[in-house]
Amino acid sequence: MSGVQNFRRCGSVVVTGASRGLGLQMVDSLASGGFAPARIIATSRDPSRAQKLQELAEKHPIIHIVTLDQCVEQVGCLLGDAGLNCLINNAGVNVVADFQSVTAEQMMQNFHTNAVAPLMVTKAFLPLLKTAASINTPSDPRIMGIQRAAVINVTSLLGSVELNWGERANNFKWYPYRTSKAALNMVSRCMAVDLEPDGILCMAIHPGWVRTDMGGAQAPLSPEESISAVLSVIGGLTEKDHGSFLNFTGEQLPW
Amino acid sequence: MSGVQNFRRCGSVVVTGASRGLGLQMVDSLASGGFAPARIIATSRDPSRAQKLQELAEKHPIIHIVTLDQCVEQVGCLLGDAGLNCLINNAGVNVVADFQSVTAEQMMQNFHTNAVAPLMVTKAFLPLLKTAASINTPSDPRIMGIQRAAVINVTSLLGSVELNWGERANNFKWYPYRTSKAALNMVSRCMAVDLEPDGILCMAIHPGWVRTDMGGAQAPLSPEESISAVLSVIGGLTEKDHGSFLNFTGEQLPW
Repeated sequence: MSGVQNFRRCGSVVVTGASRGLGLQMVDSLASGGFAPARIIATSRDPSRAQKLQELAEKHPIIHIVTLDQCVEQVGCLLGDAGLNCLINNAGVNVVADFQSVTAEQMMQNFHTNAVAPLMVTKAFLPLLKTAASINTPSDPRIMGIQRAAVINVTSLLGSVELNWGERANNFKWYPYRTSKAALNMVSRCMAVDLEPDGILCMAIHPGWVRTDMGGAQAPLSPEESISAVLSVIGGLTEKDHGSFLNFTGEQLPW
Repeated sequence: MSGVQNFRRCGSVVVTGASRGLGLQMVDSLASGGFAPARIIATSRDPSRAQKLQELAEKHPIIHIVTLDQCVEQVGCLLGDAGLNCLINNAGVNVVADFQSVTAEQMMQNFHTNAVAPLMVTKAFLPLLKTAASINTPSDPRIMGIQRAAVINVTSLLGSVELNWGERANNFKWYPYRTSKAALNMVSRCMAVDLEPDGILCMAIHPGWVRTDMGGAQAPLSPEESISAVLSVIGGLTEKDHGSFLNFTGEQLPW
């Protein structure tokens, strides 16, 4: 059932926003889980302050820490002719503001980090993703998955416009965050259309509500539980999941 | 069938982006159609350059032209204790860029105009909308419509994440526009949740593909045809349509 062992057949994974929270847990679980890809590239805005990530990298030499600014060049050198198999756009922030308090600046800031940055990062990595997809072209070129090339966008259930109604809506009146994640979902779907001819899978995943700095102490899932499920879903993705919006349980979510 | 005659029972309508295109047509159709509201307030970034709107206002004294910057104060003075019955967030731009060419600046610019501005305009008009909703409270306070208070967000089918797939997706690879309209749809849904306790209806409408400067010459609908249908839908809105995403034909669209 679990797709997580497919990461063994994945040459390289980039995880953005890996200094803490779910990104750090992804790097930890991938490196420690017995199904590690050949290389894990962890991006961080300021690696010198990412203590826990540094410790992980000392323990597991397959982990390479890079700053997001230089990361495409560095990753290109590191991966050489093999290209990049899996880009996980995980970096994101949660700007909480309701109708009364929300400002234009808060809307712009959260949109930039959560929707525009993943688009720009994916554009930058496109040549490396294309390389991996073409090297690993299967006999049936429609076949997709992380063994070939994939872009995974970590989004949120709170980005579902349809589910923003009733009880659920009243609990989380976060204008900047919700809007930025709805925007990311559209970016994800647009990119899926454009990456398909190159055999690059693209989809959006909700990691659940998790006890991180962002999710808070009352969240039902531990980072380990969430990421165990998320990596299992990502590892098992096929061309059927291209352009989809999935829960960490693997179920489809409404836009 | 047509709800357009309900505008007769509507004291005041604000139309943003009224200097040309669909906004100008809305003002024209509302003023000339035999079902005019008591006052139409048309906003324009630079009224001195809005020749056709000026001509319309000379012909119909119910039309008041204001700049968006000062518009809440001016409208407040104009409407006095009656409040504002219907705010139509129509102003928008179409930044066309595909995956290869799109820049962060284009994404930010279109998001600001199409998603953030309608939120900020609605926040600014909230006191006037609340006044109208409370003055016109029906015996059943759940009843909603333009005779009471309503916020109409002019969005696009291209903002539907679900419909951005297959043939449709390949024809319009407009990252900034699609993303900004998906974001506007989320803003619209968030606002619907927050405006409901005050009895203010909020929804999003797709005006069709129209032969304006934005839509181009090959579009199937004339501005008159589109706005005739749109005003009929808006006029007929009830509490059942609160929080919805409707086509100009009145049909529900998927998010």
